[in-house]
Amino acid sequence: MEHLYEKLSAYAEGDIYPYHMPGHKRQKWGQLPEAMYRMDITEIEGFDNLHQPEGILMELQKAAAGLYGAEESYYLVNGSTCGILGAVSSTVPFGGHILMARNCHKSAYHAAYLRHLKISYLYPGFLEAYGIWDAVTPEQVYGALEAEPGIQAVLIVSPTYEGRIADISAIAEVAHEKGIPLIVDEAHGAHLGLAEGFPPNSCRAGADLVIHSVHKTLPALTQTALLHVNGKLVSRDRLRRFLHIYQTSSPSYLLMAGIDNALEYVRRQGKTAFGLFRARYEKMLEALSRCRYLKFLPGSSREQDVGKLVVSVRETGITGKKLSDILLNEYHLQTEMSSRDFVLAMFTVNDGEEAYRRMTEALLEIDHRVTGRNADESIPEVSVCSSGEQGREPWKWGFLPEEEAISLWEAWDREAEEVVIEDSVGRYAAEFVSLYPPGVPLLVPGERITEEISREILRDLEAGLTVQGLRAEAGDGFFNGSAFVKVIQA
Amino acid sequence: MEHLYEKLSAYAEGDIYPYHMPGHKRQKWGQLPEAMYRMDITEIEGFDNLHQPEGILMELQKAAAGLYGAEESYYLVNGSTCGILGAVSSTVPFGGHILMARNCHKSAYHAAYLRHLKISYLYPGFLEAYGIWDAVTPEQVYGALEAEPGIQAVLIVSPTYEGRIADISAIAEVAHEKGIPLIVDEAHGAHLGLAEGFPPNSCRAGADLVIHSVHKTLPALTQTALLHVNGKLVSRDRLRRFLHIYQTSSPSYLLMAGIDNALEYVRRQGKTAFGLFRARYEKMLEALSRCRYLKFLPGSSREQDVGKLVVSVRETGITGKKLSDILLNEYHLQTEMSSRDFVLAMFTVNDGEEAYRRMTEALLEIDHRVTGRNADESIPEVSVCSSGEQGREPWKWGFLPEEEAISLWEAWDREAEEVVIEDSVGRYAAEFVSLYPPGVPLLVPGERITEEISREILRDLEAGLTVQGLRAEAGDGFFNGSAFVKVIQA
Repeated sequence: MEHLYEKLSAYAEGDIYPYHMPGHKRQKWGQLPEAMYRMDITEIEGFDNLHQPEGILMELQKAAAGLYGAEESYYLVNGSTCGILGAVSSTVPFGGHILMARNCHKSAYHAAYLRHLKISYLYPGFLEAYGIWDAVTPEQVYGALEAEPGIQAVLIVSPTYEGRIADISAIAEVAHEKGIPLIVDEAHGAHLGLAEGFPPNSCRAGADLVIHSVHKTLPALTQTALLHVNGKLVSRDRLRRFLHIYQTSSPSYLLMAGIDNALEYVRRQGKTAFGLFRARYEKMLEALSRCRYLKFLPGSSREQDVGKLVVSVRETGITGKKLSDILLNEYHLQTEMSSRDFVLAMFTVNDGEEAYRRMTEALLEIDHRVTGRNADESIPEVSVCSSGEQGREPWKWGFLPEEEAISLWEAWDREAEEVVIEDSVGRYAAEFVSLYPPGVPLLVPGERITEEISREILRDLEAGLTVQGLRAEAGDGFFNGSAFVKVIQA
Repeated sequence: MEHLYEKLSAYAEGDIYPYHMPGHKRQKWGQLPEAMYRMDITEIEGFDNLHQPEGILMELQKAAAGLYGAEESYYLVNGSTCGILGAVSSTVPFGGHILMARNCHKSAYHAAYLRHLKISYLYPGFLEAYGIWDAVTPEQVYGALEAEPGIQAVLIVSPTYEGRIADISAIAEVAHEKGIPLIVDEAHGAHLGLAEGFPPNSCRAGADLVIHSVHKTLPALTQTALLHVNGKLVSRDRLRRFLHIYQTSSPSYLLMAGIDNALEYVRRQGKTAFGLFRARYEKMLEALSRCRYLKFLPGSSREQDVGKLVVSVRETGITGKKLSDILLNEYHLQTEMSSRDFVLAMFTVNDGEEAYRRMTEALLEIDHRVTGRNADESIPEVSVCSSGEQGREPWKWGFLPEEEAISLWEAWDREAEEVVIEDSVGRYAAEFVSLYPPGVPLLVPGERITEEISREILRDLEAGLTVQGLRAEAGDGFFNGSAFVKVIQA
């Protein structure tokens, strides 16, 4: 198979002079490596066109499809974001009706806004002991589809940002029984199915559209992704149309070469490397089981992704933010994110022994230093607050509104006013309010603001977390207790 | 000023271990340069967040605004495409009315589709001798705005792909008299105003929104762009909303470092380098004036951009495609694009003496080899077929429909059927049909297909050009005369 990075290098060595874009003319400037400029080309003869692939890019996309068991795959250079925008736009008609998990990425909400969709939500269960949302269940999907027959597509996220994995086969079956497509935002799961002990990737589990961030778990450059398609429920023409719309007409060959590169790695070394990855990860979890107060979600199950180390601080006296500050400042270990209740550290196939050793030593040491919470306050180890089993009544977070009160697309375009958060209760949100990362919205425009959600937001601000979509006042660099949110004008 | 590439390099040297995305963990794989992986990070502490900049990215964007004379500037990692989508979406309400030049980039049409806009067109004049569209005139804009009072924004492209520059000051004045914003797709003009002899960039000429591709004419990486804002006619909140929607939530720090890098080049060496660039370009044009049959648009005027060498083959016996094949195969010179009537070669500030010498020698030699056309067929040197001066009646290409017959957004979603192009006359296009590059549509969904445009498309196919959006049959690799287009079902 011909590879993009080899072809680009070879071209860079040739005598052909570029009287075309990009304007750097393949010459280095400043401190970025020269090779980047040398290989950064445009759609010249022989290098195909991402928006109408007929040569090397078509071949590479076919190879990606082969690797993941899809009928067709698309290289994306505007991240999983454009994959989700494209998937939703092409499966649900303008003004249509989508069922989506409430813990979807912002881009899913953005697609619903752009396309004036009616949204019904799946509220995933909540793992109290860790403070994270679970994956949605087939029973929830079934219940929602039975309750609302007009739904035209289902969108869920699996693995979640924190590594929770849904039962895709069963969910696909439920969707297909209703004759509608299942879109899986598998941005965090490009490594699934690549070795023993990993659940299959969603293409092989029956999903119609699957979005993979290549850079999240494979050795590719940031902002690269793949979109895979299967079956007859998705119009390929419409899908291509929307990918064309949501992506630059000047896609970067460096980013595309990075995708090729990462998938070639998987092909050549995937089985061995991912096997080793899992073994190392399991060994670390075993060592960490000696911790007295810090708790860890078990890895390598069908429910929890290998590599997403969720460290619960619920039984310690410190916040997740504090733990991540200690890891960074004292141990030089930069975690992926921290919230009040947990820290998330990400391991991938590219981590060597050192990564596991340093993290294990640091956490054991910190666990030794922290004092446990008062026993009365301790929290059951895993309490999944999901009533998915009941099938028809999806469990809802206490502080989340029951349904879309005003359509997102209507609400987000309405005149807004800013009020102090305590006065917002009972009114309708005019903006997304999200904890970042990962940016899953706490409030969606059009949702009724409850007492509980307003308190939750204040608690997050007090814990020093980054809350986007509101104005928080600070004194001496710390939140001073005053926060303002935008609500729709009465 | 702190620079992104320096900060990234310094960070890469440090001891901090990444338990976060991207999954390559800053380690090399395959043949892409190691430095790319080492500097490819995510939004970790100290590196700010493109979607809510408060640190280094805010400072860099302020510096970009300072350089171009804008009130605010945004770094873009999804190309000018997302800048245009964002500019149109934020200035015209859903279902609103836009006035745009018919030679706009596809993304302008895509924005109109997404937002269900009514489109009125400005048909630029046509330079017969070169076979290219001219820039639109203030008189045309005035005429269109007088004729249709409901228009909410004006969008034009300047410089055009072929380098034609509009009188932005006058057009901005016309738009502002009506109280509406002017958006300038200045993707090809990020170098304007950076040295003497160049027209000012559109920010300084009064435009409200200006989109610059950084990679087209400055030494930045492909898929990078800037969006600049001025004045009170554009809601900054809505603009940020749409940029957020149309861009990945995982923007590449490599691409952003490349923008920083290119602008730093301009700051440090811009005046000298661009002066030298212009001098070399003028000298080449002077040498090329010895050609007998090949004709060149004058450079360095207020109407034609320095660097865009438009070579007309109208007075030779060969097509533009043939000329570009000769340049590539015999001289190893890769041009930007070729059409039936001309070849476009792009020079930028990053070209050294060799680039000018090789092109000059090649064209003089080729000019010597070609035989002129029969004198009867020769074409007047420059005949601008624009009646812009008359003010109220924009000139229209003979083969282009007079107006949007069916709205783009309605037409593009309708059921379509494929017919042989000869049978499509009188029917309505269901798909965009474009010559690539640059991808300006010959047909827009909803437009009535005329005899002239169908013949034009067949002529393009016969000349071996890339026509997107239709199915052309080939035999032995050559177009066999049969082409099929999609039309709306009757």
